[in-house]
Amino acid sequence: MISYQDFQTVELKVGKVLAVEDHPNADKLLILRVDIGEAAPRTLVAGIKGHYTAADLQDKLVVVVCNLQPAKLRGVESNGMVLAAQESGKIVILTLDRPIAPGTKIL
Amino acid sequence: MISYQDFQTVELKVGKVLAVEDHPNADKLLILRVDIGEAAPRTLVAGIKGHYTAADLQDKLVVVVCNLQPAKLRGVESNGMVLAAQESGKIVILTLDRPIAPGTKIL
Repeated sequence: MISYQDFQTVELKVGKVLAVEDHPNADKLLILRVDIGEAAPRTLVAGIKGHYTAADLQDKLVVVVCNLQPAKLRGVESNGMVLAAQESGKIVILTLDRPIAPGTKIL
Repeated sequence: MISYQDFQTVELKVGKVLAVEDHPNADKLLILRVDIGEAAPRTLVAGIKGHYTAADLQDKLVVVVCNLQPAKLRGVESNGMVLAAQESGKIVILTLDRPIAPGTKIL
């Protein structure tokens, strides 16, 4: 069990996908540029290739863990994480039920 | 900044809204019964009344913090939290981009 204060250590925000590229060195990874309401978009590496195409993702609202320590995924730095539900072989990203501005806090 | 291990202390799952009631003692709260893949549905109190009707929510996939300490909200115990984006006066719940089973883990 965690407290509400514990939960608040995770910074979740609405992101809007601006661009999508294939990862140069990985079959299952996509590189996303995501507006999370900051001056510049974030680069996020997501293991959703094969489940989502660039066209599926373009302009989509996603949910981003913004304060995660940067991690290199096959040589590309990811500055946060896109949340998705995963069960055996199936990956479905989280989105917003209605339009709302990138950068909006989730709580 | 948090580590991926820190993030994993938060248990997020897909929920499916089975039933919605008005809270008897609060103008802004709804009481939801949500299937999160357990034997019995969870009771979750959400501050989304005025933004969502019972019809809007019925059968909707939502995102639930499952391991939050229970909290009484105006006398009704909530066993978890439904995630939503909130900016001045606007509340939009998180949902899933495609159908997936209640109880599916989010990571």
